[in-house]
Amino acid sequence: MTTAAPAPSGRDLPHPPRAEIRLESVLHALSDPMRLQVVRQLAADGGELSCSHFVLPVTKSTTTHHFRVLRESGVIRQVYRGTAKMNGLRTDDLEALFPGLLGRVLEAADRQEERLGAR
Amino acid sequence: MTTAAPAPSGRDLPHPPRAEIRLESVLHALSDPMRLQVVRQLAADGGELSCSHFVLPVTKSTTTHHFRVLRESGVIRQVYRGTAKMNGLRTDDLEALFPGLLGRVLEAADRQEERLGAR
Repeated sequence: MTTAAPAPSGRDLPHPPRAEIRLESVLHALSDPMRLQVVRQLAADGGELSCSHFVLPVTKSTTTHHFRVLRESGVIRQVYRGTAKMNGLRTDDLEALFPGLLGRVLEAADRQEERLGAR
Repeated sequence: MTTAAPAPSGRDLPHPPRAEIRLESVLHALSDPMRLQVVRQLAADGGELSCSHFVLPVTKSTTTHHFRVLRESGVIRQVYRGTAKMNGLRTDDLEALFPGLLGRVLEAADRQEERLGAR
């Protein structure tokens, strides 16, 4: 990727500031299997991934919906870089508000995958 | 409360066995403010509380719905004792499946309450 040019103002997507992030909304965002999968992939990557990186077994509009729920709940930050919409976990914000929570959810998801995969 | 007694055999409420409890369903159950409040009260009590113990600012049928979601997700166990429907957290099951998760959610809820109350 060449430039990560600052987006024109019209392309800035709305994000809740840290103080407006609510536990209930975060839990709701994480409670969907597709969204949890996206969060796990972002956590494993540790950086930003484009929307097109994710191949979910749902329509494009449903995928867009899931990313919007994650963004509006404060779980991810979405930024346009060129023509790509990049996604990253708001780890610092979540850790400041709810220490250890995301880590435990990710651990629980790993354990569940191992458990169900081993049946 | 007098009786809203269903058929005798119908008094055993369905609960998922431990192996059928899913992280996504647990997170969904915890993602509603009323349900999270119920879980926090059950955790603070440490034992069983009757449905009538909880005074939620919603209709009786909505309250019943919330308890059903908590039960069907595996977060609580509901047992009839005489005419009372008693509720208790399935701490052992949740801890075995998702170690530390419920504790982190409860801590996060406490922190959020302090934070928002202090505004």
